[in-house]
This record gives sequence, C-alpha cells and structure tokens, in this order.
Amino acid sequence: MKKIILASKSPRRSFLMREAGFEFEVRTREIDESFPPEMPVDDVAEFIAKKKADGVMDFIENEEIIITSDTVVILNNKIYGKPKDKRDAARMLREISGTMHRVITGVCIRSRGREVAFSDVAEVYINDMTDAEIEYYIEQCQPFDKAGSYGIQEWLGYVKVARINGSYATVMGLPVHRVYEVLRGEFGLE
Amino acid sequence: MKKIILASKSPRRSFLMREAGFEFEVRTREIDESFPPEMPVDDVAEFIAKKKADGVMDFIENEEIIITSDTVVILNNKIYGKPKDKRDAARMLREISGTMHRVITGVCIRSRGREVAFSDVAEVYINDMTDAEIEYYIEQCQPFDKAGSYGIQEWLGYVKVARINGSYATVMGLPVHRVYEVLRGEFGLE
Repeated sequence: MKKIILASKSPRRSFLMREAGFEFEVRTREIDESFPPEMPVDDVAEFIAKKKADGVMDFIENEEIIITSDTVVILNNKIYGKPKDKRDAARMLREISGTMHRVITGVCIRSRGREVAFSDVAEVYINDMTDAEIEYYIEQCQPFDKAGSYGIQEWLGYVKVARINGSYATVMGLPVHRVYEVLRGEFGLE
Repeated sequence: MKKIILASKSPRRSFLMREAGFEFEVRTREIDESFPPEMPVDDVAEFIAKKKADGVMDFIENEEIIITSDTVVILNNKIYGKPKDKRDAARMLREISGTMHRVITGVCIRSRGREVAFSDVAEVYINDMTDAEIEYYIEQCQPFDKAGSYGIQEWLGYVKVARINGSYATVMGLPVHRVYEVLRGEFGLE
C-alpha cells in the first residue's frame, strides 16, 4: 500500500490535497530556499521544489511517495517571495496593484525509484488597490507566509483579482490537477 | 445606512459575499427562470438576473440594495442549466469532458433609484473524465443545484479543471470583484 507524504507546512497545500480526495501525511523540515542568482526566474520554483525533496529524502520509506512544492510570484522578471515584514508586504502589494503578474508553482513527486518534477504557470490580473485597501488587507490577513504577500483565497483575492489565466490551485500553491494525473499515471495510484 | 440584500439561495454566492467582507441579508423567492428561446445565449444570464430582480422588487425598502445573479454554462452555443436528475448530470459531464466551455454569470444590482446590470465571462478547460470519475463525483457531491452539473470548488473542480481564463468567482456564481467595484462606485458604499 503506497503512502503519500506532503512535505509542506502550507495549510493551502494540505487543503488542496484533501479536496482532491487524497489521504496523506504531512512531514516537514526547514530547508534552505536559496537559489543561484543567475538562474532564469521561470526555473526557480521547480529548482526549490527539488531541493526540498532532496532535503527530506531520508523521510521516504519503501512504499512512500513524497510531494514537495514551491510557489513564486514573478513581476518584471523579478521574483517576489515571502515578505520580510509589514512594510515589505505593502511595497510588494503596491507593485502588483493594477498589473498582471505570473505565479509559478514547482512540484517534485518522488519515491525510492522514481521522480517526476514539473512547473505550472498562471497569470493573475490585479485591479488597482488603494493604500487603504492594502493596509486593511495586511492588518486583517497578515500575509507573511505567502509569496507576493497575498493569498488568492483571502479578501484581497476575492475583491481585487479581475481574472486569472491558468489554474486557481496553482496560484493557491499546488496544481493539484497535475498531481492527480501524475500520481495515477507514473506512480500507479488508484 | 444602506443595507445589502442578496436575493439568492446559492450558498456559494453567500460565501463569496462574506469573503469580500460585505454584511448582507439573504431574502429569496421562487422566480421563473425561463428565457425566450431565440435569445442569444450570451445574454441569458443577465436577462435572468434582471428577471429575478423584478420578481423581488417589493423586497426593496428605502435604503436597501438588492443583488440578484444567474449563472449559465455554455458549450457549442447551447446553455447547460441545472441537471434534472443523475442521468442528466452524467450526460452533461460527459459532454464537457475534455473541452473548453464558457461560464457566464449575470448580475443585477438595484436600489429604488438605480440599477446596474452586467455579465462576466470565464472560459473553463476541463481534462478528460472517465465514466467512473463522473459517477464518483455525482454520488459524492450531488451537483443538482449547479449549472453544468459541477461546482469548481468541489472534487471535480480540483482534479479536472486544467485552467480557467477569467474570474474563479464568476465560475463559482458571482463576480464579486465587480460587485465590489459597483457597490463602492455607483452605489457609494464604503
């Protein structure tokens, strides 16, 4: 009997895996999320997802499958990670106000004998945000664990996202439709 | 003090209004949702939203604003409404399997002195679904109150929607980002 380990502290990723009907266990460890500065920004999420998988390899027992993931926000070819503090969050939100940015989630799915890694991209179109709206959001939702300083499933996502071109789940942090296909395909799960 | 009345039984619409931070009351009435057969399919959702507003006009007191809405699924220029039964739901899901369909949500926002009505369109790309997956979904989620026989925020939405081009909220049943703009703009809400 194969067992799925989700190596992520993100409650959004656990939510998505549950909604997709998977049974799994969460096991995490602090992993260094740095990446080479010369790396093309489109490759970073998958690079970090693999690095996270490397860091928890010793978690994997015989029949286990481990899933790691990383999400980045990209605007003007620059990566927006998690904000350092309130001020940094407000700066990021002012920068994405009224623009389209891309969200890339990289995923690594690994067992003792197999690895599948991929990235999924979504474009997110944000309406203009006033400073008052940005302040309100940061106070209410404290988005300090989120790349780009916002969660699409929070107040700001509902009132300010005009449209997305891509997967909503990818923006939340895990392209669970692709995880579903890979687990049933390459990993033979029922 | 203005008061918002959401004239819809849909728990998804209430959810979206709450997430957008609105205080509101739900008041509903059965409304005939028929439309002229010669009407262009793209106009139907807004037409029905207005018809729903007409049907609850006597709900509106001086300082109240009423919101009505209707969602349709369109494939091959044909409207997919709520399924009649299990068999009808399975037929619809087999038809949208592996295709792109459009979801249009029409909205009518009305006070005693003002009306704003609009439609919002989203494209939804569905992966192939097996008969077993369709059966499983219908049994588990009983999607009989949903246009096109699925809810994007349910199992099928998470595992089978490859991407959307448009607003996730519109697919759920209410383009709440546009409601937010209209309520703050034309209706002067804070």
